Amino acid sequence: MVVRKRSSRDIRSESRLDVLHALLSAGESNRNELARATGLSLATVATVVSELLAEGLVEEAGLSASGVGRPTTTLRIHGGRGLIAGIDVAETYVSAHVFDAALEEVGTADLTLDEHETSAEYVVDAIVRALDAAVASTGLDRSRLLGVGVALPGLVQRGTGAISVVVPRWSWRAHDLIDQLRARVGLPLVVENPLKAIATAELWLGTGRGTSSMIIINLGTGVGAGIALEGTVLRGATNSAGEWGHSLLVYEGRGCRCGRRGCVEAYVGAPGILQTLREIAPDHPAADPNLQQRDVIAALAAALDSATPDQAVVETIDRTTRYLGAAIADLVAIINPEVVMLTGWTTWALGEHLLPGAHSVIRTQSPNGAASDLTVGISTVRGNSTAIGMATVAFERFLGDVGLVTSRAPLSL
Amino acid sequence: MVVRKRSSRDIRSESRLDVLHALLSAGESNRNELARATGLSLATVATVVSELLAEGLVEEAGLSASGVGRPTTTLRIHGGRGLIAGIDVAETYVSAHVFDAALEEVGTADLTLDEHETSAEYVVDAIVRALDAAVASTGLDRSRLLGVGVALPGLVQRGTGAISVVVPRWSWRAHDLIDQLRARVGLPLVVENPLKAIATAELWLGTGRGTSSMIIINLGTGVGAGIALEGTVLRGATNSAGEWGHSLLVYEGRGCRCGRRGCVEAYVGAPGILQTLREIAPDHPAADPNLQQRDVIAALAAALDSATPDQAVVETIDRTTRYLGAAIADLVAIINPEVVMLTGWTTWALGEHLLPGAHSVIRTQSPNGAASDLTVGISTVRGNSTAIGMATVAFERFLGDVGLVTSRAPLSL
Repeated sequence: MVVRKRSSRDIRSESRLDVLHALLSAGESNRNELARATGLSLATVATVVSELLAEGLVEEAGLSASGVGRPTTTLRIHGGRGLIAGIDVAETYVSAHVFDAALEEVGTADLTLDEHETSAEYVVDAIVRALDAAVASTGLDRSRLLGVGVALPGLVQRGTGAISVVVPRWSWRAHDLIDQLRARVGLPLVVENPLKAIATAELWLGTGRGTSSMIIINLGTGVGAGIALEGTVLRGATNSAGEWGHSLLVYEGRGCRCGRRGCVEAYVGAPGILQTLREIAPDHPAADPNLQQRDVIAALAAALDSATPDQAVVETIDRTTRYLGAAIADLVAIINPEVVMLTGWTTWALGEHLLPGAHSVIRTQSPNGAASDLTVGISTVRGNSTAIGMATVAFERFLGDVGLVTSRAPLSL
Repeated sequence: MVVRKRSSRDIRSESRLDVLHALLSAGESNRNELARATGLSLATVATVVSELLAEGLVEEAGLSASGVGRPTTTLRIHGGRGLIAGIDVAETYVSAHVFDAALEEVGTADLTLDEHETSAEYVVDAIVRALDAAVASTGLDRSRLLGVGVALPGLVQRGTGAISVVVPRWSWRAHDLIDQLRARVGLPLVVENPLKAIATAELWLGTGRGTSSMIIINLGTGVGAGIALEGTVLRGATNSAGEWGHSLLVYEGRGCRCGRRGCVEAYVGAPGILQTLREIAPDHPAADPNLQQRDVIAALAAALDSATPDQAVVETIDRTTRYLGAAIADLVAIINPEVVMLTGWTTWALGEHLLPGAHSVIRTQSPNGAASDLTVGISTVRGNSTAIGMATVAFERFLGDVGLVTSRAPLSL
């Protein structure tokens, strides 16, 4: 693959993204403030704002008179420009979220997948039903949709031109699903893997493009890292960068569902945390493998918050903290990011308990000085960050379709 | 740190680097061939070539008449434009290499450092003596030097404006060394850590800028990875990206000289390989800790090549192969590069024995499909790749000084 040449068109495209991101994070702003926030010249901001106004993506929110001189026009994203859907497809559920063009959620629908039904037809049908239900919940017409983004729970890879989707538990591959989805949805569609989605969400709505290097770590059943360098999501040669969950923590350690042994995910994924509890207290009530993962993780969080904390749970969290800190220190050693953020449902449940200890391990175990200025925190992008991320990917694709940004190579259909 | 805006000046600068790199790898070329090799338009190549001719960096090598039409002018790098020095400073030696402007080595000098003498004065004096001796060996005048690059054996970090150098065994820090070096050398000087140097060398002279993502792995006493994405070396927030040698292979495993336990370096660095041998055969003659590392590694290579291979050595290499493959699979999981190249003196001695097995482990242990198209090989940049790399870093700095390329943020003095 030859390095893509950058053009002045790319630079204009980045200016537009910078202004949109700044406007999203400010809510309302004006041209002067946007120039300060983005580091762009006032002339560039004025040009970009004209383009965004012309495309109906930005609207004037009024005039504000501040001191002497002409009143300035307040600007905001024009949420009413249309709807964007982000769909998180897991092996056991489909969660569809609909956002307005200001990326405010306006509707949602969830659906459980029967684990025994794994045909492409079944999965496609579930995705379309969830999308339709989420749109219906907004009370707005489906024709308002500008684009749909679908995250698939596996490796979404680009080979030579073709898109290949490999979901371990599903027996079929790529094109069945993609052709059927295209036919059924009838809208501009992007597919991606969840790590690229959460990184895009963090760039648009979280830590943002203001960092030179940012890693967003997803802690759930699975574990992975979205990596953004210089404001762009790192994809890698086959779009599978960020599979930190399947890098080694313990050589020849616990079996991982990916087939390798000793992966980070086998220790800090939710099933890994429960296995640690089982190793510490095999008969612990929360260690029952028949319980739902999310219920058990919630029970662990509750136990830690109680007046007389359960010692087996305390020890489980302590070990998990050390596993997590060591595994993040590896990322710091290799990538040396400015910022590491945590997201995902295990983070929402246990993050506050894991973070201080993990941060201390990261500081101790990272190469000399590499973590001294590192910011480690919990992402401010709450909710289903995969679905939000897919909406931002679909929004970028829409911006490309109307000629406002150059392709950042989303896996479009 | 705010993301640096790219300008059209950056794009022109990249075109110039592309043409220089293409000319270096071709030896001799013409404008049409350079356009094909770089993907730039013929008009852009013509402009760039004029600029490089004007600066004396490129010269006309003659005319070649090929078939009908006007004869075309053959171009090559003008080696006589000046000299560039690259200096590899380790804890036990200084190795200075002098190159012409076509990056051909024209002189060299090596010096042993007394491990008990660790003052900044002593180290600076050794660097200057090695440089002077290397220049003297060329028979050319010191005034011909366009720049000097020095790799320091530790973390070379950028804090808020200042450069900080931390070498574990040396008791002093940064500025002592840097101020003294500047005063003594009296030439444009860049300092970097060896990983950034080998990545730059690989971009200029090895796998080149034609890959979207490349990792160059150094195997010697220490172990690390230079990472290049989209033709640019990944530096990280504090210039310490690539410290893969200090990421985990074995949780709570062997002690590493960095203070952490279980680092990759403790298993695949030369002392780590010898420790594996000692674990397998404590009384093996090559396991004597009083022997020099390089001699023992050479002895292992000889043993493998013999008609009746030493079984303890075979087992040592087999384990090392699995350690190395697993650790590279981690890099593939996280970065998903197109190319992984090996360099360094352990690679020159043992690479051919390690590579096939390691490649097979990488394929098996990388996330599904991530390594399917991965190229793994031994770098074609031979010799002291750290010194060659520092010369290329110094050369980039010189190109910046004469206004041909924008700063890629080398740590200049």
